[in-house]
Amino acid sequence: MKLGNQSWKFSNVYLQSVGTAVGPKEAEGPFGDQFDVTYQNLHCDEDNWELAERKLLEDAVNNCLKKKGMTQDQVDVFVAGDLLNQIVSATYNARTNQIPFLGVFGACSSSMESLAVASSLVEGKFVNYAIAGVSSHNATAERQFRYPTEYGGQKPGTATATVTGAGAALIGREVSDIRISAATIGKVVDWGIKDPFDMGSAMAPAAADTLAAHFSDLAVKPTDYDLIVTGDLSSVGSPILRELLLEKGFDITNNHNDCGLMIYRPDQKEVFAGGSGCACSAVVTYGHLIDLLRKGMYNKILVTATGCLHSPVMIQQKESMPAIAHAVVFERVGGVS
Amino acid sequence: MKLGNQSWKFSNVYLQSVGTAVGPKEAEGPFGDQFDVTYQNLHCDEDNWELAERKLLEDAVNNCLKKKGMTQDQVDVFVAGDLLNQIVSATYNARTNQIPFLGVFGACSSSMESLAVASSLVEGKFVNYAIAGVSSHNATAERQFRYPTEYGGQKPGTATATVTGAGAALIGREVSDIRISAATIGKVVDWGIKDPFDMGSAMAPAAADTLAAHFSDLAVKPTDYDLIVTGDLSSVGSPILRELLLEKGFDITNNHNDCGLMIYRPDQKEVFAGGSGCACSAVVTYGHLIDLLRKGMYNKILVTATGCLHSPVMIQQKESMPAIAHAVVFERVGGVS
Repeated sequence: MKLGNQSWKFSNVYLQSVGTAVGPKEAEGPFGDQFDVTYQNLHCDEDNWELAERKLLEDAVNNCLKKKGMTQDQVDVFVAGDLLNQIVSATYNARTNQIPFLGVFGACSSSMESLAVASSLVEGKFVNYAIAGVSSHNATAERQFRYPTEYGGQKPGTATATVTGAGAALIGREVSDIRISAATIGKVVDWGIKDPFDMGSAMAPAAADTLAAHFSDLAVKPTDYDLIVTGDLSSVGSPILRELLLEKGFDITNNHNDCGLMIYRPDQKEVFAGGSGCACSAVVTYGHLIDLLRKGMYNKILVTATGCLHSPVMIQQKESMPAIAHAVVFERVGGVS
Repeated sequence: MKLGNQSWKFSNVYLQSVGTAVGPKEAEGPFGDQFDVTYQNLHCDEDNWELAERKLLEDAVNNCLKKKGMTQDQVDVFVAGDLLNQIVSATYNARTNQIPFLGVFGACSSSMESLAVASSLVEGKFVNYAIAGVSSHNATAERQFRYPTEYGGQKPGTATATVTGAGAALIGREVSDIRISAATIGKVVDWGIKDPFDMGSAMAPAAADTLAAHFSDLAVKPTDYDLIVTGDLSSVGSPILRELLLEKGFDITNNHNDCGLMIYRPDQKEVFAGGSGCACSAVVTYGHLIDLLRKGMYNKILVTATGCLHSPVMIQQKESMPAIAHAVVFERVGGVS
């Protein structure tokens, strides 16, 4: 159901299961023991980086299905995306799992874009079961957006570390302990930032725009949520977001965190300003936050995945970087909301 | 509403208006005088190819809005995609038009993927008005997938010519003369073709798979349609599709055509096996076929957009090319169906 200008309300969308897989650096992080699959090498026992990323997404989807005791032919749609050109991690996974496929792209916001689209299809009774999934890989992203990791290029402190991992969520109308109750679809915001090593600054205004729309569309306050997480604003973009929202009259200071700041330990090497990538918000949400909802530590959380929509060609052509954020509400069934 | 395994039925989705813009070669084609905007130069009066493609999509969207007498702030969602890495034609358009944005990617199938997703959002009452749009440009695609056009590389006869153009459709629940009544979401099919200069052969099995699912899910026959068009199978893939469907017991010989074979005149230079690209099916459907439906020459048509989901990196890694096809039904309101 339409709610305000940018938001959708769901009454019958329940989380059936989640699946996650990560690389070695994420396995060493604070949530390392909460992921379904962890690899001790960045190649994930595959011959190249792209095959490694593909395997991570396959692991995430397979764990989703296994936990629910379902097979892939019982799922009606696979809504998925990733950061690679032509989203080949998602498309080659769709070739293997043979679930009818809708490819999405919203850069790192794809995690919540895929879940929002999948939820609308479940709520609208176009499908019975849907899987939303995303992946990213540090070395595939570095090669494609910057330079191959093997070059050992130096980075400024505002840069982020692309998370190696994948997350998937199986949803349906069957009642479970967690429901997906709303989504807010972002508008593209561009404040003129041109430095691809500072995506936090570029994405913070987009997150602020989507969150303000969310609060307004649903007539809710920031304090209605036990936690408001953003995807990958990092230590650079997070304070900008909080400041921008304060200017709009919304105070998220006390209940905001950023998946990019949560996924690694502060003392881990080369994490720069924090984690990023489609998988950052996906594995933190599906691997960690869902568990806290289940345990009753949270009743209602708002996950706002942020995406920087530039391309290397746009940077070469001196264009600035547009950004977007999509938000999804997760609620504990039976919780106080 | 779910129909069979892969199909969705819509009862309240109507086409409000369409917009199209094309480059010089398409303007010289048989439908040249039916497009809203035509450019006499491949640069579309812009400084580079990417800006040219961006302008085409902007023209298509603006013409949609103008014909309906609506402004962009009255549209609830812009579902769009293109062939460029990180779909930057779509994202930079979303930056300009400021409509809440969902990026999709299904290669050349994005035209009907975007329309199917947009239709589900209208039918499910998540949005009142949606615009589905796609673009492609011969020179941006050549540079990205093959070599810059300036190199003058030679091509085999199985190659296709990427259409320079953009198409957009504005849909809503307000009753009009044409309704969108169903969609079939494709599975990824890969028959092991590895030659990026022969996408017709790679995509034909995907089109056959989706069409067979469509006929089965909706319990319809090929003869229930006045026309069944595919997106860009070309002269190579079209006979393969017809043969594959005959083997499955479906005869589309008498009412099948391919947008890639329709968009150029047979005597036009360098069209090889036919047109391709997201814009191929979009501009032929929105610029030409919709008009024939309106005039009553057709009552019901099935547009099956085909997409080849490889990337240059996958080709370098010796992978085969997965393909997909998404189908959408257009019906004349008041027509015999």
